[in-house]
Amino acid sequence: MTTTDLFPTRAERKIPMSERLDPTVFADSSSRKDGPLDERELKSYEENGYLFFDGFFTPAEMQGFLDDLRESEDDEDLKLSEGTILEPGKQEIRSIFGIHEISERFDRLTRDPRLLDMVRQILASEVYIHQSRINYKPGFKGKGFNWHSDFETWHSEDGMPRMRSLSCSIVLTDNVESNGPLMLIPGSHRKFVPCIGRTPENNYQESLKSQTVGVPDEGSLRRLMNDGGIDVPTGPAGSLILFECNTLHGSNQNMSCWPRSNLFFVYNSVENTLADPYCGNRPRPNFLANRTDWSPLTPIA
Amino acid sequence: MTTTDLFPTRAERKIPMSERLDPTVFADSSSRKDGPLDERELKSYEENGYLFFDGFFTPAEMQGFLDDLRESEDDEDLKLSEGTILEPGKQEIRSIFGIHEISERFDRLTRDPRLLDMVRQILASEVYIHQSRINYKPGFKGKGFNWHSDFETWHSEDGMPRMRSLSCSIVLTDNVESNGPLMLIPGSHRKFVPCIGRTPENNYQESLKSQTVGVPDEGSLRRLMNDGGIDVPTGPAGSLILFECNTLHGSNQNMSCWPRSNLFFVYNSVENTLADPYCGNRPRPNFLANRTDWSPLTPIA
Repeated sequence: MTTTDLFPTRAERKIPMSERLDPTVFADSSSRKDGPLDERELKSYEENGYLFFDGFFTPAEMQGFLDDLRESEDDEDLKLSEGTILEPGKQEIRSIFGIHEISERFDRLTRDPRLLDMVRQILASEVYIHQSRINYKPGFKGKGFNWHSDFETWHSEDGMPRMRSLSCSIVLTDNVESNGPLMLIPGSHRKFVPCIGRTPENNYQESLKSQTVGVPDEGSLRRLMNDGGIDVPTGPAGSLILFECNTLHGSNQNMSCWPRSNLFFVYNSVENTLADPYCGNRPRPNFLANRTDWSPLTPIA
Repeated sequence: MTTTDLFPTRAERKIPMSERLDPTVFADSSSRKDGPLDERELKSYEENGYLFFDGFFTPAEMQGFLDDLRESEDDEDLKLSEGTILEPGKQEIRSIFGIHEISERFDRLTRDPRLLDMVRQILASEVYIHQSRINYKPGFKGKGFNWHSDFETWHSEDGMPRMRSLSCSIVLTDNVESNGPLMLIPGSHRKFVPCIGRTPENNYQESLKSQTVGVPDEGSLRRLMNDGGIDVPTGPAGSLILFECNTLHGSNQNMSCWPRSNLFFVYNSVENTLADPYCGNRPRPNFLANRTDWSPLTPIA
């Protein structure tokens, strides 16, 4: 299935940035109250493209996830599986994709009403998991991530038609200034920045280690940074960053001895399921872009 | 002239870290009051190995320095001079050494009583400039600096006998979390961490671009970080970080579009002038380690 490409990108020449076409909060005036987020939080999300909740989950709740994680780290089969991405030139794990399919505990967390009710309130529809992953940054070794919009990749490489999805990033280890915390450009979700450069087939095999295609040009980044600044939310394990699919973000390398692990759940609206990739390549594997199960998530009791 | 090497380093095998031998504040109980720093500040410096002053100089004062800087950036002769270090593989300036010899404005600043009186209070002696430099981190491009103790290098490569010197780092552009601000390990000045690896002749030609010799081992760094944490002071242009010569510090790359420039003056006690380099190599050039003028600085009126 193909649909009109409203967000051309990966072109050979620079295309200027354009205005966002979709709402940020999809709820209309009558349904905005249907959920845990209050009007102040919804307005802040609309303005900045993200929300930060310090200590959203308790450290005790996080412990179980950390135990599961430690098991994963020692699992040599998992290290060799296709969904596991190693650091450039290293044997260190950078990311594990499809974590909610590997661990029941993580699967249940995707359906936790504390997350799901916020997501459904913002997207004003039922939702499913487009992608889940853990990003690791081992102490001293973990590299950063270049600035990028997730939507730009999901649109061109996965065929996500519109900006109606978001990420929940749950901080599994304390995030401090020195261990490469997530950086976001507030307000950047209101522009679409097309990127330069054709997408190679199987680009994901390189881009997940070190992104070079799908990185916005410096001129556009400068404009957006000068308009909105750069926010660097930090907080203890259990903190939550909920960010819009088109909010530009990146991170620096881990200079500390402390590992930094973040869990990501990407929720997409069932009104926004995938078309064929707009870049014209074959679809990426299912662990990166779920094309097999778009049934709405049901909250755990 | 050679003296006993109290801080062996650059060995082929790991030498364990050792306790500091020198005071951090050299003033005795009667002379501690002889200067602008109060007892609380002196205690904090003794404990953490650094002091941070938010907005120490006014933005108006900084403007003249920024104007001088801009001139330097456009000076092609300066770009080719031996004291100017370019980014690895790039034409961007990373550091300019001997800045107080190039600019009268910077020379006067080294003798500004607001700085000099603090330095003389801490070191309890007359002082001279061992080294001055500007570190540039251009937006998007500026690389970081590995963790290191300045003293470890100044001792082994320059023959500085004891820990009786300090750096004043003046923030010339706003330092924020995202543009690679200075990170310090509080309390690390109280240990000496010998580094592994013989020092190649003319090591400075590489080490000033990307340091590999003179970097502490991860085990020692981990111990010191777990004991003291990592501080990342940020502040507007004109802010000052005064840090002890043995305090471990480093910085991350500049992820923002905003340049980050810091000015460094290294003051050494006239009681601590240079011997032959303890690593046995030829002395480094004068722009890195002043061996020609150890006369005490006189404050400007």
